[in-house]
Amino acid sequence: MKRFLSIFFLLFSVVITCWAQRPPAISSPDLHADKTVTFRLYAPNAKKVSLSGEFLKANELMTKDNAGIWSVTVGPVKPDIYPYSFTVDSIQVADPNNTYVFANERFKRSIVDIPGNTPLLHALQNVPHGKVTYRNYKSGTLKTTRQLLVYTPPGFNPNGKTKYPVLYLIHGGSDTEETWTKVGRANLIADNLIAQKKAKPMIIVMPYGNVRPAPMPDFTQDVTKDIIPFIEANYPVLTDSKNRAVAGFSVGGGQTLNIGLTNTDKFAYVCSYAPYTATEEFQKNFTNWNPNAAALNKQLKLFTISVGTEDFLYEPVKQNIAMFKEKNINLETLIVPGGHTWMNCRLFLANSLQQLFKN
Amino acid sequence: MKRFLSIFFLLFSVVITCWAQRPPAISSPDLHADKTVTFRLYAPNAKKVSLSGEFLKANELMTKDNAGIWSVTVGPVKPDIYPYSFTVDSIQVADPNNTYVFANERFKRSIVDIPGNTPLLHALQNVPHGKVTYRNYKSGTLKTTRQLLVYTPPGFNPNGKTKYPVLYLIHGGSDTEETWTKVGRANLIADNLIAQKKAKPMIIVMPYGNVRPAPMPDFTQDVTKDIIPFIEANYPVLTDSKNRAVAGFSVGGGQTLNIGLTNTDKFAYVCSYAPYTATEEFQKNFTNWNPNAAALNKQLKLFTISVGTEDFLYEPVKQNIAMFKEKNINLETLIVPGGHTWMNCRLFLANSLQQLFKN
Repeated sequence: MKRFLSIFFLLFSVVITCWAQRPPAISSPDLHADKTVTFRLYAPNAKKVSLSGEFLKANELMTKDNAGIWSVTVGPVKPDIYPYSFTVDSIQVADPNNTYVFANERFKRSIVDIPGNTPLLHALQNVPHGKVTYRNYKSGTLKTTRQLLVYTPPGFNPNGKTKYPVLYLIHGGSDTEETWTKVGRANLIADNLIAQKKAKPMIIVMPYGNVRPAPMPDFTQDVTKDIIPFIEANYPVLTDSKNRAVAGFSVGGGQTLNIGLTNTDKFAYVCSYAPYTATEEFQKNFTNWNPNAAALNKQLKLFTISVGTEDFLYEPVKQNIAMFKEKNINLETLIVPGGHTWMNCRLFLANSLQQLFKN
Repeated sequence: MKRFLSIFFLLFSVVITCWAQRPPAISSPDLHADKTVTFRLYAPNAKKVSLSGEFLKANELMTKDNAGIWSVTVGPVKPDIYPYSFTVDSIQVADPNNTYVFANERFKRSIVDIPGNTPLLHALQNVPHGKVTYRNYKSGTLKTTRQLLVYTPPGFNPNGKTKYPVLYLIHGGSDTEETWTKVGRANLIADNLIAQKKAKPMIIVMPYGNVRPAPMPDFTQDVTKDIIPFIEANYPVLTDSKNRAVAGFSVGGGQTLNIGLTNTDKFAYVCSYAPYTATEEFQKNFTNWNPNAAALNKQLKLFTISVGTEDFLYEPVKQNIAMFKEKNINLETLIVPGGHTWMNCRLFLANSLQQLFKN
């Protein structure tokens, strides 16, 4: 029997050597106590490797050691969650050793979470946690079955007496239905704000907003004719407009304006983050728009537009804000530093969650 | 007003030009009716780009067009879901234009789904769908809060009278708690088999199995002392051993043997896929193992080991099978063609789901 086992483990060592032809497991990103971070990439044959990240002003060149591992240490970095990638001889790559990939259709970047000395609002804290459920619904509008994510708050009981308000939360242009949780941490921000009693317990529905090759108006219909009925048939929710909100970022911020402002009977809360509005649907809805401002202002409990001053959409967003104000629409604005980033998205969402369903 | 809008849209076109500095949106993978597939990558400065994929015998060189887009058309490819990646001047990259990333901690590859002419068992079909919920649980064993995924079958009611059997399903060594859904499609395979009445409605719990830097035995404790009690406190489940199963692939297949065979009072179903067993825990459990075979065989309703003949673990798996048989343990084996792949994993899971909780 002992000989049997010796052969057995000998065989294994051969097998493991074979398996080990994978690149070595290295620690990246490697977070240090002083908020500096070391990034590493195994690329023995590369000629030039650099790090780009939304915590950097410019790309940082990395240097190679004798084992073929490139590295650079940056920071201290302000605590937040940031996208980053490596550029290896001119090709952009995600960090192979980092599980957390930015959920997106057009690029593959990684995300690094620099924790605060006291936990940040998007951190997993020692509070009751809600759940995020992946579901399929049939879209009659788009004639397909699509996936959406549903956040239900701590203590949620699908058959209980409590009925919840609902926020429909839309991602950016090449993002996916997972981006608001995987990058935006919408679930953890909600958990923490609910625990602090700063946000009302609510359901957050995160649909997939990209509609291709059809034009975008189909998504407005998908939300109003397919997604809302699906949610209302399957969850204990309040169904009047003042218990329904729509919010979104970038292309989703533009969709938010289209969906919300043309359906004020359905949505009393419209929160648009750095909206991208150069779409046919927006042009059709708002070019010769002649709203009854008094009626609209009465229906809307909250209409906000948020943007960063370094956002590449800052100028058109300002034009939109001016346009809505010119029409005498009540509008709150949140103008902060920063660009077209998910760091700002999380900030905007945290702000909205504290305002929703309160009047 | 019209002038205002003209300026407005002029501004936008500037903005869009700026945004467009991203790589062009290209279609990849591009599936054709004859089951050939075109893969494309924008890499104008690369010198050599090739495609590697588990549907290929050897890497395929790609060729560059004048726009800097590399491409290759391969196949026809046998319908299935396959991992693939590009090698750009010696660095491996996921396909930036493909949303579907192989959930893994050590590499970033993409997955391509070649549909069958009649829908495959892992395809989204027109049947009732279960849900996949992402939850946090506190692990007293590991002293942290960890995420797990829970599949609940169609018609599941957390407060209903129906109580469900539970399968605990563990990923491979550098995979994550998402790999069994994102790559393994465990949820859709279950939906389809339940619709066909070939599998019993069940709950499938997919924990995160990697325990670092602690040794692996902690995960056995995490499952038995933390995860099972969490599930039983939060879901209407049957709690006797013949309504509890454990299954897993590769490192998870080894964990399955450790967890299942040392806890036959808890698990009557143990399904191990291409198990990796060169671990201290396995050595400790099975080196001088002297089981009461009759008692064990009575407790175990089903014990299976599945593996592909081209699996790099085929030889040690065969040795393990021989070892268990030598101990007179009742054991079903499923030996199929193919390697250490998720194509085989889906097959093994589909086979197990039809056997679980039936006797």
